[in-house]
Amino acid sequence: MLKTLTRAAALSALLLATAAHAGPPSEGSGTAWDITAGLTTEIGQRLAGSDREAAARDWAVVRLKALGFDNVRIEPFTFDGWVRGPESASLTAPYPHKLAIAALGYSAPTPKGGINAPLVYFPTLDALKAAPDGSLNGKIAFIDHAMRAAQDGAGYGPYGAARRQGPSIAAAKGAAGVVIRSIGTDWQRNPHTGATSWSKDVTAIPAGAVSNPDADLIARIAKGGKPMILALQLEGKPVPKLPSGNVIAELPGRDPSLPPILVACHLDSWDLGTGAFDDAAGCGIITEAALAAQKEGKALRTIRVLWAGAEEVGVFGGAAYAEAHKNEPHGLAMESDFGADKVWRVQFDFGPGNAALADRIAASLAPIGVVRAGGKANGGADVGAIAKAQKLAVVDLSQDGTRYFDLHHTSDDTLDKVDPAQLAQNVEAWRRVLAIVANEPGPLSGN
Amino acid sequence: MLKTLTRAAALSALLLATAAHAGPPSEGSGTAWDITAGLTTEIGQRLAGSDREAAARDWAVVRLKALGFDNVRIEPFTFDGWVRGPESASLTAPYPHKLAIAALGYSAPTPKGGINAPLVYFPTLDALKAAPDGSLNGKIAFIDHAMRAAQDGAGYGPYGAARRQGPSIAAAKGAAGVVIRSIGTDWQRNPHTGATSWSKDVTAIPAGAVSNPDADLIARIAKGGKPMILALQLEGKPVPKLPSGNVIAELPGRDPSLPPILVACHLDSWDLGTGAFDDAAGCGIITEAALAAQKEGKALRTIRVLWAGAEEVGVFGGAAYAEAHKNEPHGLAMESDFGADKVWRVQFDFGPGNAALADRIAASLAPIGVVRAGGKANGGADVGAIAKAQKLAVVDLSQDGTRYFDLHHTSDDTLDKVDPAQLAQNVEAWRRVLAIVANEPGPLSGN
Ligand SMILES: [Zn+2]
Ligand SMILES: [Zn+2]
Ligand SMILES: [Zn+2]
Ligand SMILES: [Zn+2]
Repeated sequence: MLKTLTRAAALSALLLATAAHAGPPSEGSGTAWDITAGLTTEIGQRLAGSDREAAARDWAVVRLKALGFDNVRIEPFTFDGWVRGPESASLTAPYPHKLAIAALGYSAPTPKGGINAPLVYFPTLDALKAAPDGSLNGKIAFIDHAMRAAQDGAGYGPYGAARRQGPSIAAAKGAAGVVIRSIGTDWQRNPHTGATSWSKDVTAIPAGAVSNPDADLIARIAKGGKPMILALQLEGKPVPKLPSGNVIAELPGRDPSLPPILVACHLDSWDLGTGAFDDAAGCGIITEAALAAQKEGKALRTIRVLWAGAEEVGVFGGAAYAEAHKNEPHGLAMESDFGADKVWRVQFDFGPGNAALADRIAASLAPIGVVRAGGKANGGADVGAIAKAQKLAVVDLSQDGTRYFDLHHTSDDTLDKVDPAQLAQNVEAWRRVLAIVANEPGPLSGN
Repeated sequence: MLKTLTRAAALSALLLATAAHAGPPSEGSGTAWDITAGLTTEIGQRLAGSDREAAARDWAVVRLKALGFDNVRIEPFTFDGWVRGPESASLTAPYPHKLAIAALGYSAPTPKGGINAPLVYFPTLDALKAAPDGSLNGKIAFIDHAMRAAQDGAGYGPYGAARRQGPSIAAAKGAAGVVIRSIGTDWQRNPHTGATSWSKDVTAIPAGAVSNPDADLIARIAKGGKPMILALQLEGKPVPKLPSGNVIAELPGRDPSLPPILVACHLDSWDLGTGAFDDAAGCGIITEAALAAQKEGKALRTIRVLWAGAEEVGVFGGAAYAEAHKNEPHGLAMESDFGADKVWRVQFDFGPGNAALADRIAASLAPIGVVRAGGKANGGADVGAIAKAQKLAVVDLSQDGTRYFDLHHTSDDTLDKVDPAQLAQNVEAWRRVLAIVANEPGPLSGN
């Protein structure tokens, strides 16, 4: 196993180097590629609640019908959203520097003319937590961190707290604004956006993320000890009751009495890139795999595809799905929302009665380099609510996430980052799992 | 040699992968690092003719005096320059997409409200050349190309023609504007700027470069055949008679009658990044190497350091130097302006009388992995004019350029891209050459 991991790491390094200098992006083929290329080319960015997300839903309905899906429909919902506005940031002291910044989702807007305020450097979220109340009055907090790339994306949870909770903590201490180092592992000059989550007891303040090279600059200047002044303009703002919707489509099974297999991706994207890795590719993978699993004829169970809306801004599509379908039994849930590099791991959340099924799935994946691992599958954001409510059986196919957070929520999330060969491996892994679970006659359950 | 090259390629791939995911940038040490970090941190972007370029000159004078150089001075000159303005580009048909664009240096400004015009796709510069006169009236030309990374930067000359000559050719055919695929080998969403050169017989038009992923998108849409409309705003414009200057500093030799060794870099940078690779690192390398070559005591010949102004926009500093110093003999010229990855090759332009000297230099470099190659050294842009006028002996130390055009003229050209270990290898290679040539008593000449 060590040998396998070492080889995988070497291959991964090689692939990364290749991807960075491969010449023109390869043209893929097949349904997964066509969906990924189509969404990113014909729709592009599709921020939750925007006209482009609505256009993406219409595009999806046409495309899914054309692919032979049944019961293709949009289940609309509304949610409290956020729109981006003009944004900029410049250090004006001790040295003038224009910074590459993006507002975080749910940032409050800066007042007209922006904010000019001292920038106070915190090397970690813990250091910010330790700052005395009121010590940030009229100041802008800068939160640094040190997230590293990991195959399983392990850094995103802990380091991502700087984005999710950091702004609330800064606001609670009186800050006029907050800027974080992007939650990302790249060294490009492209900031990573993403939603922040305001605590109930604070008033939202302007909140943005600068690119890693800009954060390095701030850290260097902070080390020099000279006071920093930041001119900050972030005009994005919350907007209540925006329209979104889930797109649902089915491949009916031979036995309609058996609960369906639910497979999900999300249709919305952040607005800086075109959402190829996050998550057009996921929609492509699950959709081609569902079709491929039926190539030999109808499966026993219905496979239901969910292209969820408004995931990025708070998993509103997943919540709407769970509410709308709470009285309907489901057999098993899976989701693809971690890019399209090769699947390297499978994990399960299966009840004791499904142990043999897990063994069969793991055996079918082993020949294509997918290793079974301990730990409990979590299913992903969009199927999370329904899986929890119904204690569903869940299978996680983990994509290699080594470069996922290089691209995540940046302007760099574009089609050229999707490697057609790795995308095809994803489809094959998903196809193998679906061909087994959709033909399972016995009861399915999680824990 | 094949084996060596293969190992170098493998190492290079590894380094690239490492560089992309190395965690926080390493802190370097020593004079070369301090200059590179200082210029990029305390000055940042220093566009030719700007206040920041002037601040960089003052910073350089203070720094070079503190390092023990003599005759430190600024030789001012003026030149016809260019300033960037607000800039944006969006496809409005057949699909709406905001593009990442940067104006090229010497682009004409778009009229108030910008241009809305059909975008006509040309896969190559040759295809544009073949377009009938007048066929582009009222249209915007898009010039694609296919530059690949190369250790010696071989692609930049031929493919760079799309930037240098493409806009003039489009203007001659009546185009209202021109957009090119960035002259770069990366797949980041950051456009590469750089100067274009207008032919005498055309009127300048707005000219910009989109990032490679945006160019991919345009190419994909062009393939689909639906007409494209581009909304283009590029408010940058030429400005006559801007101030610049060369910073010159010397380490006087024991024999003032011997012509000096001239070593150059350029102090100005493009404005999108902080000019770490291009060319703060070059200034750091030549300066530390000059000092290190004198560590055992004064060299025989004076080493003159030239931190040239206004290189990026047309090598105005190099021309001003050649004019100001045309009546003064020089011994030999060298330049560092190709990043700071390891030096892998040495080439010479030495007259027949200096053949043995070339052999000694090559022998001193071989142990640190610098291979002697055929082909004639060219010296570089800033020393080009004086070297040509005086037929100077020239030594080229070629940095590995595999990733140079990933970063070149983009917002990504920042300090974290400079690897301290590779920077130190550059200094050592330069030190070895300078220690030999600055102690050469006999006459030096090129061809
Ligand atoms: Zn996602
Ligand atoms: Zn996301
Ligand atoms: Zn340069
Ligand atoms: Zn340059």
